[in-house]
Amino acid sequence: MFLSEYASYIGTVGATLTTVSFVPQVIHSYRTRDLSGVSLSMYSIFTLGVGLWLVYGLLKQDWPLIVANSITFCLATIVIVLKVQQLLKK
Amino acid sequence: MFLSEYASYIGTVGATLTTVSFVPQVIHSYRTRDLSGVSLSMYSIFTLGVGLWLVYGLLKQDWPLIVANSITFCLATIVIVLKVQQLLKK
Repeated sequence: MFLSEYASYIGTVGATLTTVSFVPQVIHSYRTRDLSGVSLSMYSIFTLGVGLWLVYGLLKQDWPLIVANSITFCLATIVIVLKVQQLLKK
Repeated sequence: MFLSEYASYIGTVGATLTTVSFVPQVIHSYRTRDLSGVSLSMYSIFTLGVGLWLVYGLLKQDWPLIVANSITFCLATIVIVLKVQQLLKK
């Protein structure tokens, strides 16, 4: 029981960190408009994957999953938009 | 029951895509050695989060979680190493 609660706590912190981690990438990309090192393939596949996680969360009515994946989906989409903007300018 | 099976399938595809997505980023970063647009803060926080997810998976003995997060942890760590190498060269 204790181990289970402890695991949930670790999982929650892990989920929060992986979600929040995209904030500095968005800020960095927005400020510098330098996305040359960012892989569009990576963000496209990643965002599609997060979108499916979101559908999974919605089907399961799992609110932590829905909230975390909605935020990640939006942040990753902003990076994609900035990357495509940079590619179109070239 | 059908919805539940369908949801698990969607979740599995989502998890596979988010894990696999880091492969093109690693290839891109390794080939170009251009990581100027990649946020070190993002990858540091993200990798820490994935590491905690891995601990969560180990505590829960959840093999899909363990496998997916081990792969993502390694791929994200490679990006961090390449980014730090680039920063040290400057």
